[in-house]
Amino acid sequence: MMTSLIASHPKTQRLERLTALVNDALERTLPKAALPPQVVHEAMRYCVFPGGKRFRPLLCLGACEAVGAPARQALSAACAVELIHTYSLVHDDLPAMDNADERRGQPACHRKFGEGNAILVGDALLTLAFELLSRNGAPNSLAIIRRFGHACGTVGLIGGQVLDLQVISQPRTSTERTLRDIAQRKTAALISASVAAGALAGGAASGPPLKRLERYGQEIGLAFQLVDDVHDVEGLARVMGADQARSEAKRLITRAVRALEPFGKRAGILRQLADWLVAISAR
Amino acid sequence: MMTSLIASHPKTQRLERLTALVNDALERTLPKAALPPQVVHEAMRYCVFPGGKRFRPLLCLGACEAVGAPARQALSAACAVELIHTYSLVHDDLPAMDNADERRGQPACHRKFGEGNAILVGDALLTLAFELLSRNGAPNSLAIIRRFGHACGTVGLIGGQVLDLQVISQPRTSTERTLRDIAQRKTAALISASVAAGALAGGAASGPPLKRLERYGQEIGLAFQLVDDVHDVEGLARVMGADQARSEAKRLITRAVRALEPFGKRAGILRQLADWLVAISAR
Repeated sequence: MMTSLIASHPKTQRLERLTALVNDALERTLPKAALPPQVVHEAMRYCVFPGGKRFRPLLCLGACEAVGAPARQALSAACAVELIHTYSLVHDDLPAMDNADERRGQPACHRKFGEGNAILVGDALLTLAFELLSRNGAPNSLAIIRRFGHACGTVGLIGGQVLDLQVISQPRTSTERTLRDIAQRKTAALISASVAAGALAGGAASGPPLKRLERYGQEIGLAFQLVDDVHDVEGLARVMGADQARSEAKRLITRAVRALEPFGKRAGILRQLADWLVAISAR
Repeated sequence: MMTSLIASHPKTQRLERLTALVNDALERTLPKAALPPQVVHEAMRYCVFPGGKRFRPLLCLGACEAVGAPARQALSAACAVELIHTYSLVHDDLPAMDNADERRGQPACHRKFGEGNAILVGDALLTLAFELLSRNGAPNSLAIIRRFGHACGTVGLIGGQVLDLQVISQPRTSTERTLRDIAQRKTAALISASVAAGALAGGAASGPPLKRLERYGQEIGLAFQLVDDVHDVEGLARVMGADQARSEAKRLITRAVRALEPFGKRAGILRQLADWLVAISAR
């Protein structure tokens, strides 16, 4: 039930250029595949490339620009969130979890490299994310690590997957309330943290602008999960119905964009990402 | 082949008091078991308590005192290393890895809580370690995170476990060289990082004192693995023979203690830990 790849939908040129920037930075960040032990480095790259839409790193770059800094100042944070997201997919796909055969159109990591290696690949991606954030040297680095640590912990990502495991083992007990709790922890928490991390990397202090961006992140995060569930006919869309899920997603996106008003033109990337999500949900 | 519990051996009163300090801090650091989702919090506590000898956190506190700061100034770093060590044990014990039924005299985490939860418990302990280090607020926090990130990554802990998996699947190919590489990555790297982190938490800058302490950490770390392997009749002790392993451990400990000379009395905790290891190896 983890956010799966939302099928290709054209991005604006700006978003495409930023996606390329993120991919280049990920390429430089990941250890070379030839470095021993090769299997783990090869497998890390296999999971990260070609990858999905890079929605979370783009949100991170967009929030950085929204607070008045160059988008690329948040590039380390953007790479870190993609590594974290990929780790969560690799572990969620394991036989003891969702037992998925495929991910992003190719065999899941554990099918290709074995279960033991897949567990270690996830561990390595998570560890590399924190190491990357610590190497960055930006003044708000500790605040960014704290923010991601919190979003990835048992109140966020991991707690959501624990609940998801319970739903997998007893699917009949899954109420809308439980599924909302899972979506909040597994998707919205990390998406909101991506936005906050971008703003922090751009030099934002705690205060109203950061709070507004976090609200945008929460709303766009839940909308993203709804749109994804509509697409895959699962999760919330299954219990709510596709129409209701689609209209709630639109309401959330409208509210998210409203939170961007005080940022004016600087919130251009974040608005384009919201528009992109609207376009997908309309299909 | 992961470092298993070295059976009870009396510590000095000082070491016992510091162990209690670490246990109290871990108690405060771990989320309460009653917090939802309860199963993951209950399982995290199950794995951390009563726990092993707390060798790594004690090294961390000892290094802090060695550089002239109060030992408890490294308490967050000490807790973080114990969380990291416990995460590595939980993941190493999984069916896809060592498939261990027991750990520290009780059913392994995955036997008690299921495989999916055990994977998530390991993830949660690792994540909490980094979050804890980021909350600490000490000036060297980023350097400590970088040090642990490096020691836990594919050049260290994870790389060692990848190699260990290869040995498990093809035990005949395990040469002394491979086993040394594994011991270096899985044990010595994290132990050396524990010592470095303690010194950094005590305010040490990069330079000769930090280098010396790291050398102590490397040597005591490899010695620890040798002593543990002699005890369990596995790993290096199996290919080298117990006598050779025991005498190499003693040589390493002697060299490690020699590296402490410039620190005088301040290195008292680190010397007591070395003595404790000698006493165990003599049994």
